[in-house]
Amino acid sequence: MAEKITPRTEDFPQWYQDVVLQAKLADYSPVKGCMVIRPNGYSIWERIQQEMNHRIKDAGVRNAYFPMFIPESFLKKEAEHVEGFAPEVAVVTYAGGKDLEERLVVRPTSETIINSMFAKWVQSYRDLPLLINQWANVVRWEMRTRLFLRTTEFLWQEGHTCHATLDDAEQFTLQMLKMYREFAENILAMPVIAGRKSDAEKFAGALRTYTIESMMQDGKALQAGTSHNLSDNFAKAFETKFLDKDGKQKHVFQTSWGVSTRLIGGMIMTHSDDKGLVLPPALADTHIVIVPIVPKANMAPAVYEAADKLAAEIKAAVSVKSLPYRIGVSVDKDEQKQAGWKFHEYELIGIPIRIELGPRDLEKQQAVFTRRDKGVKEFIPLADLPNKIGNELASMQKELLEKARAHRDANTYEVEDYDTFKKMLEEKGGFYKVPWGLDREAEEAIKADCKATLRCMVLDENFEPVKTNKPCFKTGKKEGNVIAIFARAY
Amino acid sequence: MAEKITPRTEDFPQWYQDVVLQAKLADYSPVKGCMVIRPNGYSIWERIQQEMNHRIKDAGVRNAYFPMFIPESFLKKEAEHVEGFAPEVAVVTYAGGKDLEERLVVRPTSETIINSMFAKWVQSYRDLPLLINQWANVVRWEMRTRLFLRTTEFLWQEGHTCHATLDDAEQFTLQMLKMYREFAENILAMPVIAGRKSDAEKFAGALRTYTIESMMQDGKALQAGTSHNLSDNFAKAFETKFLDKDGKQKHVFQTSWGVSTRLIGGMIMTHSDDKGLVLPPALADTHIVIVPIVPKANMAPAVYEAADKLAAEIKAAVSVKSLPYRIGVSVDKDEQKQAGWKFHEYELIGIPIRIELGPRDLEKQQAVFTRRDKGVKEFIPLADLPNKIGNELASMQKELLEKARAHRDANTYEVEDYDTFKKMLEEKGGFYKVPWGLDREAEEAIKADCKATLRCMVLDENFEPVKTNKPCFKTGKKEGNVIAIFARAY
Repeated sequence: MAEKITPRTEDFPQWYQDVVLQAKLADYSPVKGCMVIRPNGYSIWERIQQEMNHRIKDAGVRNAYFPMFIPESFLKKEAEHVEGFAPEVAVVTYAGGKDLEERLVVRPTSETIINSMFAKWVQSYRDLPLLINQWANVVRWEMRTRLFLRTTEFLWQEGHTCHATLDDAEQFTLQMLKMYREFAENILAMPVIAGRKSDAEKFAGALRTYTIESMMQDGKALQAGTSHNLSDNFAKAFETKFLDKDGKQKHVFQTSWGVSTRLIGGMIMTHSDDKGLVLPPALADTHIVIVPIVPKANMAPAVYEAADKLAAEIKAAVSVKSLPYRIGVSVDKDEQKQAGWKFHEYELIGIPIRIELGPRDLEKQQAVFTRRDKGVKEFIPLADLPNKIGNELASMQKELLEKARAHRDANTYEVEDYDTFKKMLEEKGGFYKVPWGLDREAEEAIKADCKATLRCMVLDENFEPVKTNKPCFKTGKKEGNVIAIFARAY
Repeated sequence: MAEKITPRTEDFPQWYQDVVLQAKLADYSPVKGCMVIRPNGYSIWERIQQEMNHRIKDAGVRNAYFPMFIPESFLKKEAEHVEGFAPEVAVVTYAGGKDLEERLVVRPTSETIINSMFAKWVQSYRDLPLLINQWANVVRWEMRTRLFLRTTEFLWQEGHTCHATLDDAEQFTLQMLKMYREFAENILAMPVIAGRKSDAEKFAGALRTYTIESMMQDGKALQAGTSHNLSDNFAKAFETKFLDKDGKQKHVFQTSWGVSTRLIGGMIMTHSDDKGLVLPPALADTHIVIVPIVPKANMAPAVYEAADKLAAEIKAAVSVKSLPYRIGVSVDKDEQKQAGWKFHEYELIGIPIRIELGPRDLEKQQAVFTRRDKGVKEFIPLADLPNKIGNELASMQKELLEKARAHRDANTYEVEDYDTFKKMLEEKGGFYKVPWGLDREAEEAIKADCKATLRCMVLDENFEPVKTNKPCFKTGKKEGNVIAIFARAY
């Protein structure tokens, strides 16, 4: 029989690890800090890729692929960039039987190698905007790793674009930020706050970084995606220039933006429970499993036939028109395993809907319906089931988002002084909206004092930081303050 | 204006490079031996991935992801494997700011790292067969590289499976070989010979290797995919065992199989011509481009309206039911570019069908239709066009395959003695079916003498080498001979 999952209330990090390992989403590998993404986890990544690709392509961005090796000298061309990434890189020094003349960094991100190509491809204003994305593995050497959330190697998409003006770059940075927010909420059912990072937390080499921040069930924050306005910092380092309409050579302005396999970890910590994974239907491969109940062997043919018929009716009723994804229905006829074992297994791996069907149900022309997130059995007439399924999947997707949003809002506090903040953070965790004086030293002092970091500055409808007349909650500075969110984070 | 493409008859390798660079399929990168796959090329890879994923999943195989770093000691566990791959690997020796205790090889292939996980996951005969695939980048240090065909880093899929018996492994090896053959012919329109490799050419660590071999337009061979029966070689090295029904612990028997971005190079060299890329419709993103002809600015609204209407009618008429892929139609309203420039550009990048539509055509309710592979203009009534499109795309897919097959068959020769073989090879290139004595030294001597390699042994309907009573074409050995194909290869 399966192992027990540690309850969330007992030990949240252990609960998370239990869910990931027991639901066979990922596993530890023999290579320090690197994970194996198992089929149950990889199918979620494939769904994320499909949905994200639709959105990326709708924005006019095209996919490409750049080398994973970056000459070490490239990394050094942008001063802040190398300072930020040099401590984390893995380096190939030996290849093809001999030491390399120039060491090759395994990409931690691809601004530099991509700019070396953009500099060649971009000639004229007619070549702009240039909108490129790649799906790739990247490596950042990590000391403390956690499956999906922080691993030495991870999978991601990284968008890289060139524009004629700083304003065009800013607009595209925000367009991708909004796309990420919509994606997180509609596909992952994960509510996020779209905000701006402080200078201390922005991407190494960017003018400014926007982020989507999400609250996990334990009240901690997770940075779920970032979108950077790079200004012309990399363009200057790589001489990425274009001939403008006015006949002048100008540097392009750029953006980059990415989300990674970390999203899977965030989605798990947002929705799952002590029985295992709770998967938003938009991320599932198999949405419905029908478990035939066969008390005696001679009853099997009739029950199996009814189960197959029901599966076909569900597939026919729930078309891609009623739901924005293809529905997966399976019938589990494995006679080596008990029904009880199966129920437990399908709860563990997060199948959104389970249907039980036995001889007595057939007599009554009904089946037992259970939604994974609710866990309540209902007896439903067989004739009603096919139409019910589509509605229930849509409701589940919506209700998971609402539940997570309610949890976040209930654990978000507005405080105006540091002592109250620190006391409440210790007691309850959660997000704290505070008046903030934009002081980098104060930010570091807070992190050192209570492990909370500035997750983002809250933005108004124009995506500018919300101003406040209240004094800074830490330094007491009276003017020029904004609203920021502090929290402990993954 | 665009550069000129070197004619095939003048310099085939230069022609290939011209097509790849000018059609913006790929580009050279600043990292030695690594290429950049540009959007026009990557969209072909995405179509390959979609089509291959359908087939892989239909075979019950699930996608997963394993670390790209492999501890150097793992590579050494299987003696033939390390001998084959050690000279080609890139090695990370430094990471996170210090020298590593154990050096990490960037995967040249993943049998070893995957077996380290399989050994943990496989416990009982109930866990078998275990069928896994991954899409990944791999690195094999190459001295002489060619875009798509041979690069230091490339993209591929690698399937890895575990079975209870050697026979099960053999059957699955062949199942994937047949899948590759069907894929190459139906999707790439590239005829292939499914054969078995000699011991000299088999995968390092395999019991035996099957291959699909294709002939390029210059008569040279391209190995387009391989499927390996690994027997229990890796299972023994990694102690990948299961408890069988009979209560005994046994090693599993394994397969691995892969195709790579090399397929794109093979597809180009099979179909393309002196005007540029010829793309089988199954691999295209955009199948039809409509070029409105606007002699005077005031004619634009009427022509654009008619072009948009025609595009919509084509999309409506050609559904996924009539063709196994989604159709892409675009209308090029760019007024900065001349129609002649556009025709040239769309021929270069391989759009399967071009339609021209001008005011005079509208008067006659017709349009000019040109299929990329035929290059002949036809005047077609507008009312007939939508229905014609689906048929023409299906015909083009079929005819490209037939044309390539006819070319291959016309350049395949049966010879019985080495002198004739060598003379013909020099004069004509092509494939040579010869009686073969399975002598490894003779195989090496032929390679040294005329650069021809044993592409594969020809197989009968049971996938066993075809036997012959004729003496070996090289050694004259009289008995136990088979039919093999020799050719020069990429």
